[in-house]
Amino acid sequence: MIYDQLILGGGPAGLTAGLYAARGGRKVALIERAMPGGQAFLTNEIENYPGFPQGIGGPELMMAFQEQATRFGLEIINNDIVKVDLAGEIKSLTGADGTVYQARTVIIATGAEPRKLGVPGEEEFRGRGVSYCATCDGAFFRNKKVAVVGGGDAAVEEAMFLTRFAQQVVIIHRRDELRAINVLQERAKEHEKIEFRLNTVVEAIQGGQKVETLRLRNVVTGEIQEEPFDGVFIFVGTKPNTKFLEGVLTLDENGCIVTNADMGTSLKGVYAAGDVRNTPFRQVATAVGDGAMAAGSAELYLAEIL
Amino acid sequence: MIYDQLILGGGPAGLTAGLYAARGGRKVALIERAMPGGQAFLTNEIENYPGFPQGIGGPELMMAFQEQATRFGLEIINNDIVKVDLAGEIKSLTGADGTVYQARTVIIATGAEPRKLGVPGEEEFRGRGVSYCATCDGAFFRNKKVAVVGGGDAAVEEAMFLTRFAQQVVIIHRRDELRAINVLQERAKEHEKIEFRLNTVVEAIQGGQKVETLRLRNVVTGEIQEEPFDGVFIFVGTKPNTKFLEGVLTLDENGCIVTNADMGTSLKGVYAAGDVRNTPFRQVATAVGDGAMAAGSAELYLAEIL
Repeated sequence: MIYDQLILGGGPAGLTAGLYAARGGRKVALIERAMPGGQAFLTNEIENYPGFPQGIGGPELMMAFQEQATRFGLEIINNDIVKVDLAGEIKSLTGADGTVYQARTVIIATGAEPRKLGVPGEEEFRGRGVSYCATCDGAFFRNKKVAVVGGGDAAVEEAMFLTRFAQQVVIIHRRDELRAINVLQERAKEHEKIEFRLNTVVEAIQGGQKVETLRLRNVVTGEIQEEPFDGVFIFVGTKPNTKFLEGVLTLDENGCIVTNADMGTSLKGVYAAGDVRNTPFRQVATAVGDGAMAAGSAELYLAEIL
Repeated sequence: MIYDQLILGGGPAGLTAGLYAARGGRKVALIERAMPGGQAFLTNEIENYPGFPQGIGGPELMMAFQEQATRFGLEIINNDIVKVDLAGEIKSLTGADGTVYQARTVIIATGAEPRKLGVPGEEEFRGRGVSYCATCDGAFFRNKKVAVVGGGDAAVEEAMFLTRFAQQVVIIHRRDELRAINVLQERAKEHEKIEFRLNTVVEAIQGGQKVETLRLRNVVTGEIQEEPFDGVFIFVGTKPNTKFLEGVLTLDENGCIVTNADMGTSLKGVYAAGDVRNTPFRQVATAVGDGAMAAGSAELYLAEIL
């Protein structure tokens, strides 16, 4: 059997693409290796997905996405795709169990994960003081003291953003200078709310119900100290789930799929949507827009070839 | 007073941008000439905005968008912007009543309207058989007979799309041949569900509670006939609300604002989102993605200049 469309990944981008394709009467399935919902499923409360004035829990929102898409006939398959052949008119996807799926169009929405520090407490306090997204969670830290870990553009931009809520923002970076572009560095250094701990790494994130202190180590002096913080924002990079696409699609220097404005990739009939592509914003709202756009582009392509 | 951000237009794109900017702690206002809600406000039922498994009324959804954005402090101003000066670091917008608003960034989300036929019954039966969006409304015409008015790519693509629901699709075009690209024309001509009425115009849309018949006139013979239809999809072009931007921003041949992938326009600090830009899909889902992206890009720009 050949599907009109196969979608890889069951986060907001994939489920939106699936909703569009299924409602459009296409023979479509979504393949997800774990539970549908993606990173959004790990988010306690989402205040900035439009339509829910009081906010909504990430799991609840993702369940609604799934129910809506399956209501229109989206099939959801549980498998881990380990091999793909996307070049021809009929695309093949091979699951970890050896099952081969075939389709005329493929939408890749396998998402991305924030890179982790890998320190004690990081996993435990996620959503309770540990965050990987200032846009998402900054508003929850009004008049608090927060740490930002990282020294690149994203870290400094997010630190600047956090000054509008937090009382104090401390940038913690392992090297003796930041990597961010100069103009950002200067703005940050001039900012009265921003402090720096350079040559410093986080050794542990500690607390009770939520984050209370960070254990910091100076990598030059070896000195260790515990400093109180209400939250810690970690910006040490993004890891897109594209390992299986190396040598198949054009990826950028971070491994994200390069797309055009219509979500097309370097191969005909193959689209990417959401966090997995080279996008500057990783939000449910933007993933939904991407998913609808990818499904629409795939639909135009199918109308021409079928 | 100088705003950090002014948003023009209160549809889904503008309200989403406003939600992000307000929640981000920015001094932001949205200027709308009529009621917030845009084209979505005119839509009875929206089944493909993710998060609402049973669908939601357009007005209800747009009220929720507005409530959510204003809850975070978005100011909504009622005015019709008639003159803009967007080139400098401080942008000026002048309302019809002479009020001048100033801001460091501007997001234009003034939307677009489908071009109308301008025939009797068109306004009256909108949402009750008259539609301008097959993706939105096609699923409501399962096993029905529908007309598609227009001869361009959009008209033929949408006709192809409608064959997956409708029993019969009749393309009505005023000229003796279609304007759509060849491959699409051929697919349509080969399709068993698609018929053509060329050299034909719709003179009136008629019915009781909903569309029942179209009055058609052959422009060559002058012959008039009434033909039964359950619905009519009109694809004779899109009219973006950009009259006030001519000579200010780069527009495409249809008058839509040309943007890059980050929603940036030809002027620094000026962004566009939603139906007003050169996008192939005009959906609430894509407008929301655009709005979030535009707000994010404006935020990065503000972080550099402020």
